[in-house]
Amino acid sequence: MIKLNKEELQLASKINQLKDEAGSHSPSIFTLVKKIPELNVKVDACFLSNPYATDLFLSYLKEELVNTNKLRDVLEFYPSQNNVISELLAKNLCINKENIFIGNGAIEVIQAVLHNFVSKKIIVNIPTFSSYYEFVKKDTEVVYYQLKKENNYSLIPEDYVEFVKKEKPDSVVIINPNNPDGQYIKYKNLRYILNELKDIKNIIIDESFIHFAFENNDYDLISATELVKEYNNVIVIKSMSKDFGIAGIRAGYGVMNKYKVASLLENGYLWNSSGLSEYFFRLYTRQDFLEEYEKVRVKYILETQAFFKELSAINHIKVYPGLANFVLIELPEGTTSSDFVSKMLIKYGVYTRTCSDKIGLKGEYIRLASRTKEENTVIIKALNDIFVNE
Amino acid sequence: MIKLNKEELQLASKINQLKDEAGSHSPSIFTLVKKIPELNVKVDACFLSNPYATDLFLSYLKEELVNTNKLRDVLEFYPSQNNVISELLAKNLCINKENIFIGNGAIEVIQAVLHNFVSKKIIVNIPTFSSYYEFVKKDTEVVYYQLKKENNYSLIPEDYVEFVKKEKPDSVVIINPNNPDGQYIKYKNLRYILNELKDIKNIIIDESFIHFAFENNDYDLISATELVKEYNNVIVIKSMSKDFGIAGIRAGYGVMNKYKVASLLENGYLWNSSGLSEYFFRLYTRQDFLEEYEKVRVKYILETQAFFKELSAINHIKVYPGLANFVLIELPEGTTSSDFVSKMLIKYGVYTRTCSDKIGLKGEYIRLASRTKEENTVIIKALNDIFVNE
Repeated sequence: MIKLNKEELQLASKINQLKDEAGSHSPSIFTLVKKIPELNVKVDACFLSNPYATDLFLSYLKEELVNTNKLRDVLEFYPSQNNVISELLAKNLCINKENIFIGNGAIEVIQAVLHNFVSKKIIVNIPTFSSYYEFVKKDTEVVYYQLKKENNYSLIPEDYVEFVKKEKPDSVVIINPNNPDGQYIKYKNLRYILNELKDIKNIIIDESFIHFAFENNDYDLISATELVKEYNNVIVIKSMSKDFGIAGIRAGYGVMNKYKVASLLENGYLWNSSGLSEYFFRLYTRQDFLEEYEKVRVKYILETQAFFKELSAINHIKVYPGLANFVLIELPEGTTSSDFVSKMLIKYGVYTRTCSDKIGLKGEYIRLASRTKEENTVIIKALNDIFVNE
Repeated sequence: MIKLNKEELQLASKINQLKDEAGSHSPSIFTLVKKIPELNVKVDACFLSNPYATDLFLSYLKEELVNTNKLRDVLEFYPSQNNVISELLAKNLCINKENIFIGNGAIEVIQAVLHNFVSKKIIVNIPTFSSYYEFVKKDTEVVYYQLKKENNYSLIPEDYVEFVKKEKPDSVVIINPNNPDGQYIKYKNLRYILNELKDIKNIIIDESFIHFAFENNDYDLISATELVKEYNNVIVIKSMSKDFGIAGIRAGYGVMNKYKVASLLENGYLWNSSGLSEYFFRLYTRQDFLEEYEKVRVKYILETQAFFKELSAINHIKVYPGLANFVLIELPEGTTSSDFVSKMLIKYGVYTRTCSDKIGLKGEYIRLASRTKEENTVIIKALNDIFVNE
């Protein structure tokens, strides 16, 4: 059990208040430090991104934009229109440009899909990323499919298909790997689901964490993007924030049948990319960048999986290892996630994500992001210490 | 009359093709130069922004982000949510944060308003910025109110009010100053219109060029923003691209009654600002930046008005001077705007905007942006030459 002393209790109450104000998201580290200057944060283990990819992007940007006069162009002029950027991505994604919708972050794609294509009823698997039920239109019914604790919150294809067929929704959402548990649906199982659910109008597959998943020893990336060619009802949504470490740029896209893309572009979304997101998307089509990126992707996967292994060996906590860049952790009985988050933050400077706002989780959980190797070492040390010295 | 030689005709046909492909917008200078490398463009007089404001923003960005480690933070982390940025702007705009909706460029605000609040019928004054009729929903009827040539395309309040009362739309759009003619509606006339049209559900006032307008010798800025407090039906839409010279950042906002803002934020638009647009909005609330900005705003207005005066003295063309940072020019009989644009581009390296796609203009027109003093001199020289030597 974790005990907070008087001073810690005071800070904890401030931390909890900020979390309450942030609703179904966690307060940013900037907000935390600004509002509670007593905190000395060393590691932001809430934040889900590959820090090595940020380094890589930053080095390109400095060399190609800052050290030349091109930064001014990127800031001053209008970026390209949606369909110009789609054309850039088409070759990379092995899909026609007519099937690609560029978003100001994946969240814009989620909003566009939920507001324009999802109609009466959507099935959302829980626990999940809250926007998928918070962003639906007023008149859309949300039905939750509970991922089961006894299966480590992984999705059992047959059970899921049976549930969907019974509920007859017009839309379903599958996040792969899922957030906050990191559980991954293998490609062959995804295909099984798609074959069974051909009658469902929209099958949304959110692959925002897919770059961290793998099925073979080469860590090859297996995306559902090209399945859009085979299954007319599939909508793949992809954030670039996590794998490329560029959440501040707001870059994402959706891949879906061409009539859906056309209907979105018909009277909107003309200039929703910024100069920097266009620069990123152009980099993303360049062989030199992609080769460098592949190295930092695999490096990060290796470190992340090693981190999960170390975490699993720690006493008192139950770790649910998956194939994302974060891990779900169940706390021992008698420990609340808010006390845990406060203690980790105040005593060890490690900011972790409470899952108290996540519906569909029975027990006390936190979510922990994999950061740099050095930062992960700090996290492991704190976790080995936190229950011992109390 | 303008004559094109054989070589010029070939290039002109390529220029016209690119314009056709760009629809109701002009192809960017990058597209032009990439597709027609023979062109030597010296001045982009299509592009509507204060170049001195871009210099100013760039100098802040270099000092505060690039020369420190903060650029990484702006790229790596999630920016603040919509309502956090509204709170920043509230003091500046003298309006409650609940009345402010932050957009990924004004175009996102335009789309949100047209898709969510405009219902059956909207009156759009022509000539105009095309998105106001292109972005309406399928079932919205667009009725055009023709601004009259004999009034230099300026809006006559009484005539406009009479037209609106007769048509009984649910929404109207007023762009002030208007694009592409730069005509300005004085504050007292705007108030008269608002008093007469209290029964109209939505009065959209687009103030994207308002920073270039003035009514007194101090060049004071007079915005309709605070009228939202008095008139519940007013929606002010503001792009930051033009006055601050930062189109690549995508920053804009809307000011409207709090129920409208709440309904937009209820299930969307959570993270639609980028790290750089948040940085800009934070600058926009700082006294040091605003003082510097005011200097470049007035400097640019003075140069722009002097430029308009010089333009008005040129033979063969009719200039419609207004209070925006661009001017509408009518070409002499026998000269098409596409020939003019081609000749100016090919022979003088000056890129001007044809208005051939603008509905509601009778005759051949181009729109000319005011750029730096040096660039404006190049434009004047070309215009003095183009009709003389043909």
